[in-house]
Amino acid sequence: MLLVMYIVAIVVEAMSAALAAGRRSMDWVGVCMLGCVTALGGGSVRDMLLGHYPLVWVKHPHYLLITAGAALFTIAVARVMHRLRKLFLLLDAIGLVLFTVIGCNVALEMQLPFVIVIAAGLITGCVGGVLRDVLCADIPLLFRSELYATVSVVTGLVYVGGLQVALPHDLIMVIAMAVGLTLRMMALRFNWSMPKFVYTQDLH
Amino acid sequence: MLLVMYIVAIVVEAMSAALAAGRRSMDWVGVCMLGCVTALGGGSVRDMLLGHYPLVWVKHPHYLLITAGAALFTIAVARVMHRLRKLFLLLDAIGLVLFTVIGCNVALEMQLPFVIVIAAGLITGCVGGVLRDVLCADIPLLFRSELYATVSVVTGLVYVGGLQVALPHDLIMVIAMAVGLTLRMMALRFNWSMPKFVYTQDLH
Amino acid sequence: MLLVMYIVAIVVEAMSAALAAGRRSMDWVGVCMLGCVTALGGGSVRDMLLGHYPLVWVKHPHYLLITAGAALFTIAVARVMHRLRKLFLLLDAIGLVLFTVIGCNVALEMQLPFVIVIAAGLITGCVGGVLRDVLCADIPLLFRSELYATVSVVTGLVYVGGLQVALPHDLIMVIAMAVGLTLRMMALRFNWSMPKFVYTQDLH
Repeated sequence: MLLVMYIVAIVVEAMSAALAAGRRSMDWVGVCMLGCVTALGGGSVRDMLLGHYPLVWVKHPHYLLITAGAALFTIAVARVMHRLRKLFLLLDAIGLVLFTVIGCNVALEMQLPFVIVIAAGLITGCVGGVLRDVLCADIPLLFRSELYATVSVVTGLVYVGGLQVALPHDLIMVIAMAVGLTLRMMALRFNWSMPKFVYTQDLH
Repeated sequence: MLLVMYIVAIVVEAMSAALAAGRRSMDWVGVCMLGCVTALGGGSVRDMLLGHYPLVWVKHPHYLLITAGAALFTIAVARVMHRLRKLFLLLDAIGLVLFTVIGCNVALEMQLPFVIVIAAGLITGCVGGVLRDVLCADIPLLFRSELYATVSVVTGLVYVGGLQVALPHDLIMVIAMAVGLTLRMMALRFNWSMPKFVYTQDLH
Repeated sequence: MLLVMYIVAIVVEAMSAALAAGRRSMDWVGVCMLGCVTALGGGSVRDMLLGHYPLVWVKHPHYLLITAGAALFTIAVARVMHRLRKLFLLLDAIGLVLFTVIGCNVALEMQLPFVIVIAAGLITGCVGGVLRDVLCADIPLLFRSELYATVSVVTGLVYVGGLQVALPHDLIMVIAMAVGLTLRMMALRFNWSMPKFVYTQDLH
């Protein structure tokens, strides 16, 4: 079940990235590469930072093929994508909370401290999108809008907090993901966002 | 022989990067750093992703000095560089296929699966240029034009495919590099490129 | 003493990054993340390149909390920051030489060659700012102005050179940092900079 959701999540991430590539008129190779980096980059950065080898896609190379294939497939179906907009936002939100929980689990298995577990979840959930924006020469969307990172942190906190309680592991995972998912969908629905910090003076 | 070609390749990469730095009016330190990152960055990212330590330039620090020196030297000879344009494109293409084969070899020695061997070649051949473009705040050229990445993948495929055949290792390496080099030079000559994916609708 | 200076240095780096985030109207999450990446990114990249695990902030997670807290605190005190401009430039310069010496020490403990020790100091001192600029979609300031990287290299050279002399380790560290700090303050005072390399022809 988790595996199916993980594959759906990397496919959705790859397809979103492919559309971002299309908006910048990248060629097919660029579309594939941006798809792979976006879908698998968050977990890769987490594993490199924690020294957790081998990386997921090195161990399971078919994930690389799936994301590259999903990115290419997007080129074929791009015309009808806007009709699936709402479904995509939902799947993207599921991907965010799922990646977060997976990232937390990696750090938990390495018996790392609480703060690092939350950070590992955040990195897994959000860094793929940051890499996508950097490769598109944009300021990462994550730094400027929506509760994306906040959702990841809240999901991580509920999950790690829940593990202190005597409840089944799977149940806590489902609860954490449900809380994160609800927060994300409400943020999208009601246009919630973090306050911005606007600074106009030049320090230098 | 391979070592000589490798050093020529990193020198050429460093010199191209130095010209890119000059086009953005970077200072001499920036020129050196961009040269080192471009020439040695692809192999470094590959090694960090695969957990293959120590990195090449950490083991052989003189590569770092050679690339920094080549970048600085470029400042002195920049005026005559445009006359060597064709030679440079040839050397750059040799660098691409050579880096690719070296990257494949690293993954082969680690006994990684087929897909990862190809990916390791691609990363080694292409990521240096991606880092250069990111540090210049540009969308990577790789994602938008030419058969650069494709050449790397084809070279990797011929090389890894060839290893299944009962031929001497060195011969297969030469054949793979010759195929890749030919493809690259023909792509430059006839202005071949991958089809672009142009998407104008906004998903969000 | 070194620990106090280190914490002051990461706080100053995080606060500078927070102002850079404010200039781009990032939200509070973006401010925190940019602060952490800038303050801890140089050491993290060094450790990943050298295969030196665990990373500093993974081992000491409170550094992550300190930098995130410093970035948030900056939002509250941003109005009075311009009055502290000179103090900030001094603290930033101290951070630069301190990070450099710490980076050299990591490579020295790993018994890496001389060139890599200098490079480790340079990476630790300068890469945080490069990551900040890349995430702001700017060409790194480091590549274009001031003696920032030069100060780091000189500090490293004095430090590593001094270790060949029969003087107490701590004294050499203080001398190296004093030399670097003086050079940096003079560069700021007299507006020194490296010569620029301006290249206007197109190679391609």
